[in-house]
Amino acid sequence: MTSSDVECMECWNDGPPKEAIVDFVERVTREGGPDYVPPAERIAAFDNDGTLWCEFPMQVQVFFALAEVKRLAAQDPSLLQKPAFKAMVDGDLKALASLPKKEVFEPAFATHAGMTVEEFHENAQRWLAQAKHPTLKQPFTQGAYLPQCELLTYLRVNGFKTYIVTGGGVEFVRVVAEELYGIPPEQVIGSSTKMKLDTVDGKTVLRKLPELASFDDRDEKVVNIALHIGRRPIFAFGNSDGDLAMIRYTLGGDGPRMAWYLHHDDAEREFAYDRDFKLSPLREGLDRAAEYGIGMVSMKNDWREVFAR
Amino acid sequence: MTSSDVECMECWNDGPPKEAIVDFVERVTREGGPDYVPPAERIAAFDNDGTLWCEFPMQVQVFFALAEVKRLAAQDPSLLQKPAFKAMVDGDLKALASLPKKEVFEPAFATHAGMTVEEFHENAQRWLAQAKHPTLKQPFTQGAYLPQCELLTYLRVNGFKTYIVTGGGVEFVRVVAEELYGIPPEQVIGSSTKMKLDTVDGKTVLRKLPELASFDDRDEKVVNIALHIGRRPIFAFGNSDGDLAMIRYTLGGDGPRMAWYLHHDDAEREFAYDRDFKLSPLREGLDRAAEYGIGMVSMKNDWREVFAR
Repeated sequence: MTSSDVECMECWNDGPPKEAIVDFVERVTREGGPDYVPPAERIAAFDNDGTLWCEFPMQVQVFFALAEVKRLAAQDPSLLQKPAFKAMVDGDLKALASLPKKEVFEPAFATHAGMTVEEFHENAQRWLAQAKHPTLKQPFTQGAYLPQCELLTYLRVNGFKTYIVTGGGVEFVRVVAEELYGIPPEQVIGSSTKMKLDTVDGKTVLRKLPELASFDDRDEKVVNIALHIGRRPIFAFGNSDGDLAMIRYTLGGDGPRMAWYLHHDDAEREFAYDRDFKLSPLREGLDRAAEYGIGMVSMKNDWREVFAR
Repeated sequence: MTSSDVECMECWNDGPPKEAIVDFVERVTREGGPDYVPPAERIAAFDNDGTLWCEFPMQVQVFFALAEVKRLAAQDPSLLQKPAFKAMVDGDLKALASLPKKEVFEPAFATHAGMTVEEFHENAQRWLAQAKHPTLKQPFTQGAYLPQCELLTYLRVNGFKTYIVTGGGVEFVRVVAEELYGIPPEQVIGSSTKMKLDTVDGKTVLRKLPELASFDDRDEKVVNIALHIGRRPIFAFGNSDGDLAMIRYTLGGDGPRMAWYLHHDDAEREFAYDRDFKLSPLREGLDRAAEYGIGMVSMKNDWREVFAR
């Protein structure tokens, strides 16, 4: 790694966050230096919705659930007793946005019950290939933030192992993670449904069940990091209070550590929201970032570009 | 990879298993060949107890629990109402060996409730540093099978990612996996307890709870492979019916696939057991290996050495 490689972060404006990240990476990779961290311990954990791609006005997976749920509610009207299902079928995005994130994600898990993991994968891929964001008028996959893709690459070039730790469904995010972010399926940790084995044509398949196994948000992100990685990350990036436990866990270890919040303050190029975004608010994290030692990245000021053109 | 590198498997006798493994690896790594598999999809899943190290007359972690449980039963006599705890405190190994594996492992999880993951790690490390196998009279860590360590290395040299998928506790196995097998913590999948976040000196820690989250045996091995890896392995190695679901899942995908059972038929150098080993029997797997397409490795005939000297 030479300083010229920093040029790969060309979608970041020069300024404190970029300088601090480059300084951190240089310190932890300098062999023999006081802050050197062996490659195996260079674990970076990124939230996905609102951190690596656009989550406003709703997470991509909720849009996907919306597209699926009408068909399913016709088959099983009892689903409409759940507020999130009803709001989706009614197209009442305002009612939907007023519900807790866990309830809103529930249809996203429930609608795929009985599918094999492979069927779910194909289904999600097909939807992603044609669906567009309602106001940005671009495919949802185009909603990946270019500066973050650069940052992930920069970290990997410097020996980091990059993980996604998302409230979204693990299989849903795996559909896009490799292509959008260069992150292989085994480095995606997310919410999950229970599953059961079945046999089709004499071969073992896994079917998704309607029951949630883990809702990978807040404290559960830390539990799942311990379960899947077994090491404390040294670098974390989030954008909401749902990421606060993961960020504080990251910062709570020994040695050099760094964590960031992405602040959505760019109404012109993306959206401006934080404490009042009910689906995934940034409140405690915003109020206490300095006290907790969390850096703030301003989308408006720190990013030269937001989306790939 | 050249054929001379095969020499690294020098603890394997020449014979059908070694030849078949080498042939398989050469086929899946031959670029442009009909059986080529890209490196990212070269996932190998290994059971641990009885596959990578000695599990007889009881799994290492059960010996560890034995050492812990007496102290804890003195503090909480109600534990003795559970047959596995009582058998342990009474030193009644015969009663213990007659119980189902899940019950026998329970004290192993329960005795560590309330410990942070770091404390558990230190505790297990301290015990492993001095404890010895009752009849082999060697440290338990010396019970790692040399030919399997060679095989893991051979697979990794050929671009495979090697995973442990164990009924043992994930944190316990991670204590030894890197040193014994060269497998990092994030490639160990195992049984797990629930955990909760706590704060010590203002820093986030995780404490183990007495409740089992996942008993990673039989079907659950497949569910956890899907959850952690998100790809179907192309190579699997086990030694009991607890590994059969994982093995059949491995063999059930498209393209080249290979799976093995280690047959413990070596009373002289290790132990001879299969269908009557109640803690982890090999019955269906033994009777139907040929039908299912599973190869058998005979410890007695196929391994030149068993343990490192």
